[in-house]
Amino acid sequence: MTAQPFPTTCPIPLQQYPHVLMAHGGGGRFMHQLIEHMFLPAFGTHPAGQHDAARLDLPHGRLAFTTDSYVVSPLFFAGGDIGAMAVYGTVNDLAMAGAKPLYLSLGFILEEGLPMETLWRVVQSIQTAAVRAGVAIVTGDTKVVERGKGDGLYINTAGVGSIDHPWQITPKSVQAGDVILLSGDIGRHGIAIMAQREGLGFETTLESDLAPLSEAVQALLAAGLELHCLRDLTRGGLATALNEIAIAAHLAIELDEPRIPICEAVQGACEILGLDPLYVANEGRFIAIVPESQADAALEILQAMCPTSPDCSAQQIGRVKPPTSLDNFSVLQGMVTLRHAIGSARMLDYISGEQLPRIC
Amino acid sequence: MTAQPFPTTCPIPLQQYPHVLMAHGGGGRFMHQLIEHMFLPAFGTHPAGQHDAARLDLPHGRLAFTTDSYVVSPLFFAGGDIGAMAVYGTVNDLAMAGAKPLYLSLGFILEEGLPMETLWRVVQSIQTAAVRAGVAIVTGDTKVVERGKGDGLYINTAGVGSIDHPWQITPKSVQAGDVILLSGDIGRHGIAIMAQREGLGFETTLESDLAPLSEAVQALLAAGLELHCLRDLTRGGLATALNEIAIAAHLAIELDEPRIPICEAVQGACEILGLDPLYVANEGRFIAIVPESQADAALEILQAMCPTSPDCSAQQIGRVKPPTSLDNFSVLQGMVTLRHAIGSARMLDYISGEQLPRIC
Repeated sequence: MTAQPFPTTCPIPLQQYPHVLMAHGGGGRFMHQLIEHMFLPAFGTHPAGQHDAARLDLPHGRLAFTTDSYVVSPLFFAGGDIGAMAVYGTVNDLAMAGAKPLYLSLGFILEEGLPMETLWRVVQSIQTAAVRAGVAIVTGDTKVVERGKGDGLYINTAGVGSIDHPWQITPKSVQAGDVILLSGDIGRHGIAIMAQREGLGFETTLESDLAPLSEAVQALLAAGLELHCLRDLTRGGLATALNEIAIAAHLAIELDEPRIPICEAVQGACEILGLDPLYVANEGRFIAIVPESQADAALEILQAMCPTSPDCSAQQIGRVKPPTSLDNFSVLQGMVTLRHAIGSARMLDYISGEQLPRIC
Repeated sequence: MTAQPFPTTCPIPLQQYPHVLMAHGGGGRFMHQLIEHMFLPAFGTHPAGQHDAARLDLPHGRLAFTTDSYVVSPLFFAGGDIGAMAVYGTVNDLAMAGAKPLYLSLGFILEEGLPMETLWRVVQSIQTAAVRAGVAIVTGDTKVVERGKGDGLYINTAGVGSIDHPWQITPKSVQAGDVILLSGDIGRHGIAIMAQREGLGFETTLESDLAPLSEAVQALLAAGLELHCLRDLTRGGLATALNEIAIAAHLAIELDEPRIPICEAVQGACEILGLDPLYVANEGRFIAIVPESQADAALEILQAMCPTSPDCSAQQIGRVKPPTSLDNFSVLQGMVTLRHAIGSARMLDYISGEQLPRIC
């Protein structure tokens, strides 16, 4: 993606077309206007982009490939919007495979009647985020559904990245004795969204943590560190991510509660709302599971790369243990325990549903 | 994708969970049940599939990459459904780049309250289509939106394919003198959908042409034929596809109307409905633009690979001409002309919107 300037005002005449019409998804002149005047100036600078499919020349054939749809509500929130999220969310999934994110696809599902200005704001945000994350948007698609069959707009992005490291970065590589590093404080994204949605009034001070994580991962790899597993903390939060890893690795995980960074605003909001911050969604935090011998070096890099306020920066939050002797029926429970400051412990279970719908 | 048998009845207990709940998109236990019991048995057989991103080892780094969202209504129609369409549509976009389709991503946006049985039918259809098209579904995502914020289900697929041919298959490679081949009769998909949606009563005899096109393209490439441009005829139909190519190539296109195969049922329905079949959507037809010297060989392959009824099979339907001497203001019009049997001609313009919304 070349960071070329593109129009700062909406290139579709808003007096004539103030809203998205069904025809904007119809494959005819209206759709081509949208593509020609809005999407191509924003994204179409990459030579690989073509009509049916982008043609990519990668250095080799070791790739990571991922997808996510984004249905977050509201579309714009403190610290981000659905457009930036659609870029960073998919970039982060590639980063968690240790891949260098290179190319994104972009699929819009627009609701008839969406203000054209809203679409334009989202397109600008996608363009800015793609430049920041160093990815090119090389192929796309636009569909329009009737009023009442969508919710403004939904986005799908898929991502392709190249894998240039020798590691198997997966829960199966996790070993007893490994340590768990967390890249920053948790819960900001979920609480920022909920505050805004429910009008709780503290939205001015709390912003989503939405951010690309690929730079931090590339820094860990560039330092030659042996990465066993990486996982970004999205839906379901820290507790769900660790449960998934523990189950896949057939190992237990023990966390030190006092070491888990949570800022005061999130802590306070969670108390008011009756939420457990360990289950609240994030969009710019990840855990790295590494051999104990590499923990200090990795932590130093994370603390430098993912700066938050001093009391909320990257921490070593726990360690991996041999599997607990549970029978088969309880294998989905009790794999992750949280050790409190006073010495007691509780199990961190999988949640059944979600604390907050449409968080991403 | 290994064609392994997977459950023939819905693996989610329907008495307990007859409908999709918001929690099925929440990242917790409900979502993991759906993934574990329904999606992984259907798609999860490929070793590349992993949590955040699939790891792919391709023979080299020359790739095609594409995406499409599918919002077709109704979800099930004569000759296909949204699931098969989500596979073949994206496979066909890869094929039009001359790529061999290899891997798909799969993103669901489900509406709360969708019958679980409906999701299961779609999943089965996707699995069958993926096996038929020879692609593996290696990564996916599931979101659920509230009742009234969707329309049952929307699907996005992105696709990765490998490019193993030396050609630049793009409108820019088209030259005056090239001939235009059409792989079969047109209009079946659009008319089948409209018939079913409007209850026109002839839906029993007319089925969508929905089909994967990659085998036909691979056969053309295997024969060593020089392919200048390929284009599948989806939204906007044959006329829109040719307009796009003519504009991109800065050349004119002349079609022989009597040579364009249209079956009687489509012709009759178009007359009743006041539609022009040249603008009606297809999901299993494409045009190949080749040098005149290769036309006969290519046509023979297409007629063998894309069998329809004898009067509706692949045809040479026209040729590429030097650009007409139009001024700049009319450059978007009059590039494609249709020569009638009686010798008269008309211009085939870009349509403004679409004849039929949510056709794909």
